[in-house]
Amino acid sequence: MNYEAIFKEAIASLKDEKRYRVFADLERITGKHPRAILRRNGEEREIVVWCSNDYLAMGHNPKVIEASANATYTMGAGSGGTRNISGTNNPLVQLEAELADWHGKEAALTFTSGFVSNEAAISTLAKLLPDCLILSDQLNHASMIAGVRNSGSAKKVWRHNDLEHLEDLLRSAGNERAKLIVFESVYSMDGDIAPIERIADLADKYNAMTYIDEVHAVGMYGERGAGICERDGVMDRMDVIEGTLAKAVGVMGGYITGSSAIVDAVRSYAPGFIFTTSLPPSLAAAATTSIRHLKTSSEERDAQQRQAQRTKDRLNAAGLPVMHSETHIIPILVADPDLCKKASDMLLEKHDIYIQPINYPTVPRGLERLRITPGPAHSDELIDHLVTSMVDVWNELGIDFKSDATLEEEAAPTAAILHHAAGG
Amino acid sequence: MNYEAIFKEAIASLKDEKRYRVFADLERITGKHPRAILRRNGEEREIVVWCSNDYLAMGHNPKVIEASANATYTMGAGSGGTRNISGTNNPLVQLEAELADWHGKEAALTFTSGFVSNEAAISTLAKLLPDCLILSDQLNHASMIAGVRNSGSAKKVWRHNDLEHLEDLLRSAGNERAKLIVFESVYSMDGDIAPIERIADLADKYNAMTYIDEVHAVGMYGERGAGICERDGVMDRMDVIEGTLAKAVGVMGGYITGSSAIVDAVRSYAPGFIFTTSLPPSLAAAATTSIRHLKTSSEERDAQQRQAQRTKDRLNAAGLPVMHSETHIIPILVADPDLCKKASDMLLEKHDIYIQPINYPTVPRGLERLRITPGPAHSDELIDHLVTSMVDVWNELGIDFKSDATLEEEAAPTAAILHHAAGG
Ligand SMILES: Cc1ncc(COP(=O)(O)O)c(C=O)c1O
Ligand SMILES: Cc1ncc(COP(=O)(O)O)c(C=O)c1O
Repeated sequence: MNYEAIFKEAIASLKDEKRYRVFADLERITGKHPRAILRRNGEEREIVVWCSNDYLAMGHNPKVIEASANATYTMGAGSGGTRNISGTNNPLVQLEAELADWHGKEAALTFTSGFVSNEAAISTLAKLLPDCLILSDQLNHASMIAGVRNSGSAKKVWRHNDLEHLEDLLRSAGNERAKLIVFESVYSMDGDIAPIERIADLADKYNAMTYIDEVHAVGMYGERGAGICERDGVMDRMDVIEGTLAKAVGVMGGYITGSSAIVDAVRSYAPGFIFTTSLPPSLAAAATTSIRHLKTSSEERDAQQRQAQRTKDRLNAAGLPVMHSETHIIPILVADPDLCKKASDMLLEKHDIYIQPINYPTVPRGLERLRITPGPAHSDELIDHLVTSMVDVWNELGIDFKSDATLEEEAAPTAAILHHAAGG
Repeated sequence: MNYEAIFKEAIASLKDEKRYRVFADLERITGKHPRAILRRNGEEREIVVWCSNDYLAMGHNPKVIEASANATYTMGAGSGGTRNISGTNNPLVQLEAELADWHGKEAALTFTSGFVSNEAAISTLAKLLPDCLILSDQLNHASMIAGVRNSGSAKKVWRHNDLEHLEDLLRSAGNERAKLIVFESVYSMDGDIAPIERIADLADKYNAMTYIDEVHAVGMYGERGAGICERDGVMDRMDVIEGTLAKAVGVMGGYITGSSAIVDAVRSYAPGFIFTTSLPPSLAAAATTSIRHLKTSSEERDAQQRQAQRTKDRLNAAGLPVMHSETHIIPILVADPDLCKKASDMLLEKHDIYIQPINYPTVPRGLERLRITPGPAHSDELIDHLVTSMVDVWNELGIDFKSDATLEEEAAPTAAILHHAAGG
């Protein structure tokens, strides 16, 4: 047994498949977002980030920064303990009240990340329900899949956003059995949206519990930015709404909201919540400030939608293979891992544009893509520059422009893929 | 199926067992550590925290605070992405270099928490090794147990720190089979230390891989504070050294260090690493500053050891049931969940001393305790106040002082308990 050799082989096989990942070493610059400094081979240069999930640049909002720094100055850099053992800092208590209010729920609970919130909450809720059957959307995020697996419960995967399939599965499970439907509002790699209201109708009809991940929607949709459920007026129809503090909120951490009983059960039983140091006061204070801002300001949301639409329109007009998306997320199909990486490299080297290639396992093989996330700070000039640069790269590398194949993809972006982890 | 009723019952059963947890709402005060503000029922008052895991108060070190605030001002409140998708910020790259150097390893990898580092690394390494057998110490932390479980690999639990038992299991697995030994250096709830060198000898003899959790040791032991492995001169004999940034380092986050191949394999294959937003620049910069300080300053370590020893001596002299501990961690046995909570409540109400009761599932039933963690900032006066307050509470509540039963506990603090999650 040669341990080193085994790990080396595991790496070599990724290289063979052209999906070995090299991380871009970045330094974001407040006041200059979306510009950042890229360090590589001892050199530094400024580039434009087109794939950040700090969707509204709230991580660079002066009030958010101030709240974070202030909490650090007054309370220190860490919380000093798990939630139970000295780690429940007052900014965290305030944040949880803010989150419950945001989603119109009785209670909220924070976790160290959105990943952990999904893993811990889904696995714990399903474990507490006797003989629970989890019904999981085919394209759910890796963190939800982790929760489903770690629950040890029975699971059935329903075809992505397919209500008939979901209903079949609910019907055959019967009204008496405990059933937990887990799905997302905005799917992060395709940018499509779940039919939430109709899923809630089915849950009512068959007496199932609902758990929705709004990670790519919170901050960005709805009157107060609470997400797609708010926009669609269905927050009260979801038993659990889960979100992250790390994307549009601009900070880090994750959470669930729901009834007091649900939240208290997760708080009391989830190892991923109990046995870990709590979020520092700085992150909690920054997140609260960000959410309070987003509850009343639509400026960032409006600008994001405007610039995202403009980007889509321009890319489409240039004939680039824009995949269909109902949201601020714009995937451009390349459909080959090697070409996808080359396109990303050339955009960076030649045009100072950073868009990470998205390959397997983040998306299914054959659907490799560049995923663009325009935000309020991506100006019209930056959009023009993006489009001409991409056209240049597409020509240079001989990648397919918009074709019938792409149009088919538009109709069913990720059809025929089984339970697949998306998102990192 | 009444979902709410099920969750309410789950909570009610905790209340029946007297292990329903109420978190103390705290506001730490920089410059005044270990004092903090406690908020309860609309009232505020100052108390002394005696159970913080910010062991060396590095979370309140001015350089650490400055580094955190500076990074926030210049780079923003969040990283904006997963490691692969725009989230690898330069302070994180620097932190990983610092961590590798600290533990004398080729490479390091950071995670959002120590919990996630254990879950992700153990499960991924074991999955990559064909037919791996995990050998797990009986008292390993919940996060290690999560990693062991989620690997899906075969596991055998060895009696806590029992080398003969470990050797039996290694021998019967045979030299050819892949074997991963997972254990801790300092056990957080008892304060005892593993025989690391002899475990390394066994690993060599039977060709096993070693994974050690130094969460409660990093920063506090060894010439440069890298932990018990450094102190014992055995860093190079461990394949993976795991640690947290959230305890003696004073911030938040977790990490592993090891050979380039091991670290690259976890980086490339672990869902808990891949599919989650990376640590913000502020936390990374704060952690790097803290570690750089701890590499050269022994002041905090010396003061901690001195005040911990003084606390032990005084508590022992007063006849309080101090459990045997080789480290800065001082458990005081109460051995009853209700009394344990009452003792904690009375210390808080009457004496302004905050020590969280440690009940099941953090420790086994019957070994409920108060766990005290003196640090450099706990002055001689505070220690005297602690001891007289505890004696008062012990008398008031009629809890057993030091007895033969306690002495027995000293010899085998948590004997006869099977694979049990400790720590939150
Ligand atoms: C749908 C979805 N859920 C959860 C997460 C995890 O959130 P976090 O980054 O806060 O861990 C992500 C991405 O990271 C995601 O895309
Ligand atoms: C032994 C041990 N390992 C790991 C952890 C998890 O570390 P973190 O708090 O950084 O998640 C803890 C406690 O929290 C612990 O006690």
